[in-house]
Amino acid sequence: MRTGLDLNCDMGESFGIYRYGADQEMMPLITSANIACGFHGGDARVMRETAALARAYGVRVGAHIGLPDREGFGRRFMQMSPNEVYEISLYQLGALEAFLRVEGMTMAHVKLHGALYMMAAGDKELSDAFAEAVHAFNPLLSVYTLPGCETVTSASRLGLNVVYEYFADRPYTSGKVKMFGWTPEEIGSPTEIAARVAVMLEDPAYADIGTICVHSDTNGAPAIMGAIRDRVTQEAL
Amino acid sequence: MRTGLDLNCDMGESFGIYRYGADQEMMPLITSANIACGFHGGDARVMRETAALARAYGVRVGAHIGLPDREGFGRRFMQMSPNEVYEISLYQLGALEAFLRVEGMTMAHVKLHGALYMMAAGDKELSDAFAEAVHAFNPLLSVYTLPGCETVTSASRLGLNVVYEYFADRPYTSGKVKMFGWTPEEIGSPTEIAARVAVMLEDPAYADIGTICVHSDTNGAPAIMGAIRDRVTQEAL
Amino acid sequence: MRTGLDLNCDMGESFGIYRYGADQEMMPLITSANIACGFHGGDARVMRETAALARAYGVRVGAHIGLPDREGFGRRFMQMSPNEVYEISLYQLGALEAFLRVEGMTMAHVKLHGALYMMAAGDKELSDAFAEAVHAFNPLLSVYTLPGCETVTSASRLGLNVVYEYFADRPYTSGKVKMFGWTPEEIGSPTEIAARVAVMLEDPAYADIGTICVHSDTNGAPAIMGAIRDRVTQEAL
Amino acid sequence: MRTGLDLNCDMGESFGIYRYGADQEMMPLITSANIACGFHGGDARVMRETAALARAYGVRVGAHIGLPDREGFGRRFMQMSPNEVYEISLYQLGALEAFLRVEGMTMAHVKLHGALYMMAAGDKELSDAFAEAVHAFNPLLSVYTLPGCETVTSASRLGLNVVYEYFADRPYTSGKVKMFGWTPEEIGSPTEIAARVAVMLEDPAYADIGTICVHSDTNGAPAIMGAIRDRVTQEAL
Repeated sequence: MRTGLDLNCDMGESFGIYRYGADQEMMPLITSANIACGFHGGDARVMRETAALARAYGVRVGAHIGLPDREGFGRRFMQMSPNEVYEISLYQLGALEAFLRVEGMTMAHVKLHGALYMMAAGDKELSDAFAEAVHAFNPLLSVYTLPGCETVTSASRLGLNVVYEYFADRPYTSGKVKMFGWTPEEIGSPTEIAARVAVMLEDPAYADIGTICVHSDTNGAPAIMGAIRDRVTQEAL
Repeated sequence: MRTGLDLNCDMGESFGIYRYGADQEMMPLITSANIACGFHGGDARVMRETAALARAYGVRVGAHIGLPDREGFGRRFMQMSPNEVYEISLYQLGALEAFLRVEGMTMAHVKLHGALYMMAAGDKELSDAFAEAVHAFNPLLSVYTLPGCETVTSASRLGLNVVYEYFADRPYTSGKVKMFGWTPEEIGSPTEIAARVAVMLEDPAYADIGTICVHSDTNGAPAIMGAIRDRVTQEAL
Repeated sequence: MRTGLDLNCDMGESFGIYRYGADQEMMPLITSANIACGFHGGDARVMRETAALARAYGVRVGAHIGLPDREGFGRRFMQMSPNEVYEISLYQLGALEAFLRVEGMTMAHVKLHGALYMMAAGDKELSDAFAEAVHAFNPLLSVYTLPGCETVTSASRLGLNVVYEYFADRPYTSGKVKMFGWTPEEIGSPTEIAARVAVMLEDPAYADIGTICVHSDTNGAPAIMGAIRDRVTQEAL
Repeated sequence: MRTGLDLNCDMGESFGIYRYGADQEMMPLITSANIACGFHGGDARVMRETAALARAYGVRVGAHIGLPDREGFGRRFMQMSPNEVYEISLYQLGALEAFLRVEGMTMAHVKLHGALYMMAAGDKELSDAFAEAVHAFNPLLSVYTLPGCETVTSASRLGLNVVYEYFADRPYTSGKVKMFGWTPEEIGSPTEIAARVAVMLEDPAYADIGTICVHSDTNGAPAIMGAIRDRVTQEAL
């Protein structure tokens, strides 16, 4: 079992009076929190509270950058120019960093959200724009993304550290993740998921996976992450 | 004539396809630009462009922090808790700093906008919250505000540098500025305004004024700022 | 026990992925639903679904009109001119009516939300503007509001039907409701609330109460409304 | 020259303090105004004022329905489900109708805006959803769109009147309009445009054109519409 495996979760996606995601339950279980920055989800209040929660549990924090589409939760694909991606990335990075700074924390990574994640993964220009924003803002940030996608190429070219992500709560077919349109049956129980993760971690095809994601809005997310954590941390972490 | 007098202007208040304010004409005339941060005005694109414009003219930049009310341009008073003021201040400070950092610039000051400016000026708790956000974010930032208001007390208590602001394009009556409900006649021509500024600068009652503001959306703002600049920079600046 | 007593509930305040309020549980228990119109809460999707839900249970529908402040859920007081109140009222009335029309439903009433409710209650000009919007849009709409407030006067002057509202899930002290800052202890259990309502309905001081409200986001709202309904509908309704 | 030719213009796209488009100058020149409904542009204030302006000039009014993307002015393509298109269409139709009703006006037509116009034009399901919303709301509304597109088929199938639109301020190549990426040179002067329109109106290939659009944000829009009007109304209109 490899050491230093990272467990990440999208966090801070509540908004105003609206609660979303099992943040309180997930935070003790993870090593990295991707905090929404007020575009697809989150707001200044939620960012402040989520940063404080991460600090309380010693969890690393990254920016979870989304499309300017709160109503669609950043899940609707949207035509964005590379300049727009550069600009909204910078804006969100800066906004989150303010909350980390006053908590005495340092931003560790960045991860795109929803449709923007997939848009960049398949588009060199958008990935370039995103990577340039990250690099200009803080070249020490790690970029979480899918192995083999355009974002890897763009981030690597600028010397950014790339961490490959495995989505434990999404089905994989011959190495390809199915992000949309899956059924709960395809995912299985927490125990089944943890078993699949353990197999994956021994599979040379996944040798470069550096972080495992469970979405905080997946049904039973804390149980899933707990099962994974129990399984993979018997030796490592 | 005192040296080092600062001329400031609210900038970057355009949004999307909408243009607002004479930014291009004002930037060459001023020494400090207060850039909107995407709440009352501005967006990520506009922030980027305005920061670049300020850099091109060697103009210092501050954050122009407003209420979350784009439709009302941050001019409608709104019930905000101290915590909310703290949080929206931090968010906007961070967002702007990202754009300055990638331009190789440093944030110099902060100035509240519209209703939030006046709300804080008259409310100790809101001013405390604002000053705490500024101090926690960057204790080297100067705070622009009206002499004698609550914001002065809160900022000073935390050791922040306070710069007293004179609104050249608003009428004053016995030392009190009239921010709302004024008529163009009360303000007068650019020459009259510049003359009034010159008198003010010799008036011991205004000896602590450190910066002069002309709003970029005041009719004829560039002519007004140009006239002031001509008048006050014959010796100083 | 008077006949025809109305039980109303604020509904359709979910937004995007965010769920809010026990709409599914409340709808079978009430006679009038106040549906949010996309300003303080709700969106086009939620309006459509809530209208359909009301239709399925034969519940009358009214517009629940709020401030343009989604992040604050319309609960932050906000400076609004009478013209602005007129305009945002019309906009929301029209938007909701579209969804009712395609369901073959007719709008029956209108009720302001949160801060706007209280702002109008205490301000003649805002109440006038609101009443004028309602009257111009549809003079057959009933206005739900507190007895004795400015909204009553404005609506009555234009000949609108006014229905006095009693907030079952808020504490009353000598006839005055405490909308903010109450504790759960002040409200009591569903049985206690229902008992209080029954006493109120026999009290000549409340003889003109025409509708009883339980907020769908009050803890245990369905149990509260169920207890009231059981109690007051033994003879009437 | 055919009689009854309609001249239409997109209107009411200002927002808050931001002015956009030559509405005042265009209104006297046109016969149909497409009024934005607060999604891509416009707000309740602007809708009210634009409806009143149309009434003053006896101009017919339609709803100009856009994507929920104010920052991108509804010009960024965005993934929308048919249900979402149905819902945002209804919402906007209703909101505008409220303002027309209080002005004693009747809505005459509907026209999609920007990216939504083009998305529907090329997508049967989105056009079906849009046409169903229009039909359910008011089957007497005319639908303005491009000849031969999916929106024509969907609207016609439901028995809606379809009016074919010619974009005078966009270049055409072999009968196909170029909506994006054109240069001013491709469009030409007002006189050239009016001449082109006159030729088009005699061209059997365009015999079914029922309305001519000039965008109020095209450079020199009033001069263009004025030239067209002079040219085509010598006999007709």
